[in-house]
Amino acid sequence: MKIYLDCYPCFLKQALQAGRFVTKDEEVLKDILDAVASTVPSIPKDATSPMIGAVIHRIVRDITGEDDPYRQVKAEKLSEAKKHYGAMLDHVRASADPLASAARLSIVGNIIDYALVQDFDIENEIFSMAGSGMGIDDTALFKEALANASSVLYLGDNVGETVFDKVLIEQIDAPVTYAVRGGPVLNDVTEEDAEASGLGEVSRILPSGSDAPGTLLDECSGEFLEAFNSADVILSKGQGNYESLSGTDRPIFFLLRAKCSVVAADLGVNRGDFVLKAANIQAPVGV
Amino acid sequence: MKIYLDCYPCFLKQALQAGRFVTKDEEVLKDILDAVASTVPSIPKDATSPMIGAVIHRIVRDITGEDDPYRQVKAEKLSEAKKHYGAMLDHVRASADPLASAARLSIVGNIIDYALVQDFDIENEIFSMAGSGMGIDDTALFKEALANASSVLYLGDNVGETVFDKVLIEQIDAPVTYAVRGGPVLNDVTEEDAEASGLGEVSRILPSGSDAPGTLLDECSGEFLEAFNSADVILSKGQGNYESLSGTDRPIFFLLRAKCSVVAADLGVNRGDFVLKAANIQAPVGV
Repeated sequence: MKIYLDCYPCFLKQALQAGRFVTKDEEVLKDILDAVASTVPSIPKDATSPMIGAVIHRIVRDITGEDDPYRQVKAEKLSEAKKHYGAMLDHVRASADPLASAARLSIVGNIIDYALVQDFDIENEIFSMAGSGMGIDDTALFKEALANASSVLYLGDNVGETVFDKVLIEQIDAPVTYAVRGGPVLNDVTEEDAEASGLGEVSRILPSGSDAPGTLLDECSGEFLEAFNSADVILSKGQGNYESLSGTDRPIFFLLRAKCSVVAADLGVNRGDFVLKAANIQAPVGV
Repeated sequence: MKIYLDCYPCFLKQALQAGRFVTKDEEVLKDILDAVASTVPSIPKDATSPMIGAVIHRIVRDITGEDDPYRQVKAEKLSEAKKHYGAMLDHVRASADPLASAARLSIVGNIIDYALVQDFDIENEIFSMAGSGMGIDDTALFKEALANASSVLYLGDNVGETVFDKVLIEQIDAPVTYAVRGGPVLNDVTEEDAEASGLGEVSRILPSGSDAPGTLLDECSGEFLEAFNSADVILSKGQGNYESLSGTDRPIFFLLRAKCSVVAADLGVNRGDFVLKAANIQAPVGV
């Protein structure tokens, strides 16, 4: 049994961060820490990081009375990312392999994550990072699988990163369903955020039915599960979706940056590595 | 009222770290996290970091049954630091201002802190850092005060750093009392550790009477308080002593590296800065 012990201190930190987006009242912030800490013993030993996160962020929303503590942060990051949409699209179209290039960019976009990184400078980093090495690189399988797919389910992660996702989706021929969180949690993408990111122009937007910062199938809606179980290929962005779906038997590609040591160790890569990892994908002849 | 909110996630992390020095059993480690987290709401809102640390590390020792989880780590760091004792003494003696040079070295030694830094490479860093800038530099007052002192109380911090402290104490003419924690907590120096560091050769070793990772006067022994209240000059090493004594009216110098953002902000320096800060010291004419 895997126990995600290192996630507890991290989530206490996140609770404080989320609270501070709503109030500067230190008494209220201590109340949040107390409530979150009191809940820790009731979280099952085998809870994954997204399960812990779901519980903790619900407490923050309850105590602050703010249903979306990251609203302003999300708006700022989305606005910033949108400025670079044109340049990203040009970069991808001008590249020798637009689909691979767009996949790489969408992984770079995964660094936009207020859970862990607050000072990402999009302008300076996008293209320098897009040339960096990968900890796991199943790009050949990725291209092959997408070429043969007639339906794709794309599991979104952070707002702002959504703009990078749009660039990738535009390189995919098959119809794409873009799954979002069922409600606000962290800076994760909701239906409203996905629409604001322009994802409605290139995909069908589908809420997961759960406000966990990941994809907890037990909490997801029937409509989401149908899409999950029927898609030819699933593209999963970010750590939260990886942590909740790494054991699935569905054909899936995990696109993420390994931002924390827990996830990096699980993937067998270095912290900070970019990852494009295939699971349950049949390698076609010649790949 | 100052609430040290950021210390709570950090101490949860420390509890996990301390537990892992004793056991690899994840069930036990989750029990430690649960017990520590459960205690958070009972910690007063105005508790300082050393007060929180005292509570949390007592829990770790209770649950693991190990009265000194950092025993081996302390022994390793002490052994490593001792190898450099001769070179440090040579460096100080060869310098134009041995007392100032030894003070600077002792502040560099403050980086040896398993609470926050696990990978300090003594060999490479000691002398390069000894030339770095200071966030606060009251060296002139420090030299003047020590020249006029007939008794000095030196509040120790981490094991390993103790060897650096010994080098500094050897440059001080007045008799020095070296205060240590009343019992094991973190990698902080106890009476046994101070003896093993050779501090008995250059000072009188005096336990504080408290096992808090700092100097909580309410918890200290009468003998310690007598030394604290009668010393001409107090030298206080590290963050924990600073956090618990920053409001004192006794003549004191704080020697530390600002390793966390909470302490750096309180001191008005950048995180990572070296600090030699005077408090309640009368500036003599000409300084």
